[in-house]
Amino acid sequence: MRVSGKPYRTVWMPDAATVRIIDQRRLPWAFELIELHTVAEVAAAIRDMAVRGAGCIGATAAYGMALAVREARSAADLQALAAQLIATRPTAVNLAWAVNLQLEAIRDGGPEIARPTAERVADEDAAACAAIGQHGLHLLQDLAARHPGRPLNILTHCNAGWLAFVDHGSATGPIYAAHAAGIPIHVWVDETRPRNQGVRLTGWELAQEGVPHTVIADNAGGHLMQHGLVDLVITGADRVTRVGDAANKIGTYLKALAARDNGVPFYIALPSSTFDWSLSDGIREIPIEQRNAEELTHAEGIDESGRESTLRIIPAGSPVANYGFDVTPARLITGLITERGICPASEDGIRKLYPEAV
Amino acid sequence: MRVSGKPYRTVWMPDAATVRIIDQRRLPWAFELIELHTVAEVAAAIRDMAVRGAGCIGATAAYGMALAVREARSAADLQALAAQLIATRPTAVNLAWAVNLQLEAIRDGGPEIARPTAERVADEDAAACAAIGQHGLHLLQDLAARHPGRPLNILTHCNAGWLAFVDHGSATGPIYAAHAAGIPIHVWVDETRPRNQGVRLTGWELAQEGVPHTVIADNAGGHLMQHGLVDLVITGADRVTRVGDAANKIGTYLKALAARDNGVPFYIALPSSTFDWSLSDGIREIPIEQRNAEELTHAEGIDESGRESTLRIIPAGSPVANYGFDVTPARLITGLITERGICPASEDGIRKLYPEAV
Repeated sequence: MRVSGKPYRTVWMPDAATVRIIDQRRLPWAFELIELHTVAEVAAAIRDMAVRGAGCIGATAAYGMALAVREARSAADLQALAAQLIATRPTAVNLAWAVNLQLEAIRDGGPEIARPTAERVADEDAAACAAIGQHGLHLLQDLAARHPGRPLNILTHCNAGWLAFVDHGSATGPIYAAHAAGIPIHVWVDETRPRNQGVRLTGWELAQEGVPHTVIADNAGGHLMQHGLVDLVITGADRVTRVGDAANKIGTYLKALAARDNGVPFYIALPSSTFDWSLSDGIREIPIEQRNAEELTHAEGIDESGRESTLRIIPAGSPVANYGFDVTPARLITGLITERGICPASEDGIRKLYPEAV
Repeated sequence: MRVSGKPYRTVWMPDAATVRIIDQRRLPWAFELIELHTVAEVAAAIRDMAVRGAGCIGATAAYGMALAVREARSAADLQALAAQLIATRPTAVNLAWAVNLQLEAIRDGGPEIARPTAERVADEDAAACAAIGQHGLHLLQDLAARHPGRPLNILTHCNAGWLAFVDHGSATGPIYAAHAAGIPIHVWVDETRPRNQGVRLTGWELAQEGVPHTVIADNAGGHLMQHGLVDLVITGADRVTRVGDAANKIGTYLKALAARDNGVPFYIALPSSTFDWSLSDGIREIPIEQRNAEELTHAEGIDESGRESTLRIIPAGSPVANYGFDVTPARLITGLITERGICPASEDGIRKLYPEAV
């Protein structure tokens, strides 16, 4: 998508020795590209969250393997570099998947296959999000037709935007597609405490694409829905069970409850790589990580002199707990928007789209 | 309640010429008392939110009138000073109520009645919260008996603590009463974006009283309830209709929905002054103010050198909306804890406790 009018992906190789990424830690305060020349640099970028988001991490790791084949002097070397990449974020499913895909491709096709394989991983990620966008577009067209003469109000939580993938994004895919199709859209962007990815990433993305939006506190969504100010909720997901329970950023469940209470459709947008076919009961089976307390106790921003800075907003010694995700049960989800189409959040519904998987 | 082991109220007169308050803007970073000697100083303290919370504002204004009788050289002077106090926060019902009560008392009893009247206003506010605490205590005793061998987990949102009243607090009244009675309690404290009153006031209060608690992001409550980690929700309210709809800090409604979805009892604690007998449909009739965008765009805290400081956490130019309150419909409220007892959140239930009012 565009940054200052120029199209970008989140990760790409400008030449055979270089992986280029957007340093997402600096957003929205600064747009800065980083060049990575070694597997160690790629690993550090993933570990330190210069890149984040399932699709973006997977593609970055795939490109990292295209550097690995240049660094490795032996098959053992290559395995060690692959292990170094996988170890950076052990819970990221796409990361291990992309690295293992590369190992297999290289074993069969030699080192020169690594770069085209990385390009294919990135292209497929972008294509999946583009397809999600097109399927979602039909949904938004239908909704917009029911509310002529005013923008369609969509609420989203966290960042399931193009920054989390290679391009387009999952939750933002339909939004960008509708905006491009001339459907008037307005997006309510949940701040998304504690890490504020709504403000920092989704708000920034939408601004760069010229999509009208308003940042709100996470607490505000229920009130907006009570007053008819939300037509549709779309979020991404970190993991979806085969029955349609969806783990996503903490607080998603509360928005799904408010949507249900007010008759607002609630959709999860996801590429099929987000399904975990082995799980059926999301609330019992999906482990929810507790994250660093500093995400809650400290705020990042810019001080009066314009410098990026950090402030303690919860007193030292105050006990805090920082749960990263929650699970929205399938019963609260109107539908899943996937690259194959839209289906009900149920084992039956999902099976019809993915007969080979379930 | 106690601060560093010493009992305090939020406002009092140490002598006939002085009103003393806690500067709540400095909490939790500093505990600082301010002395007010003129009506102008009292008005500034209310306007600038050195004191906030219905009960606390009402008592402060009543004490302000005890200074007004010393300043006024005529009945017209007194009226002007009263008007100055009322104008500070026009939507605060208790403020106008306390000032008008004083005007009547002074008209009937002369200027010397003003200070004892202020003491009475403060005492009655404290007594109402103490009674709420005792009624709530029975509820907590019953719940604790059902969960022997572990602390009772209570979730609260925003600050309806003693800092919002003269003493004890409404939502915290039952918590402090149970803690004093030796019932093991643990409180989940919602951060309460955008102004963070949960962190800054409720967390601080509970720490001073030695009540175990944990600060969480507003997004976390649903996840906690899904996993059986919340036994009860108690919040305060800014306005409650005669049928039991409750306007409270934005985000309260989302917690009520999660409580309902998980079978967790959800109570609103309030003194009867919070009822608005003229209203029946809270969602349609209670106006929700949009507040200053800076509450959302800027965070207050302490910087690395320990100085109180402000940071911009949402980029300049990013559109924001800051809704202050939402309305929890009566159907989601298990009961109302008032100074007269606990009743269902319904016109019938409320009428039985307040037959003279409805």
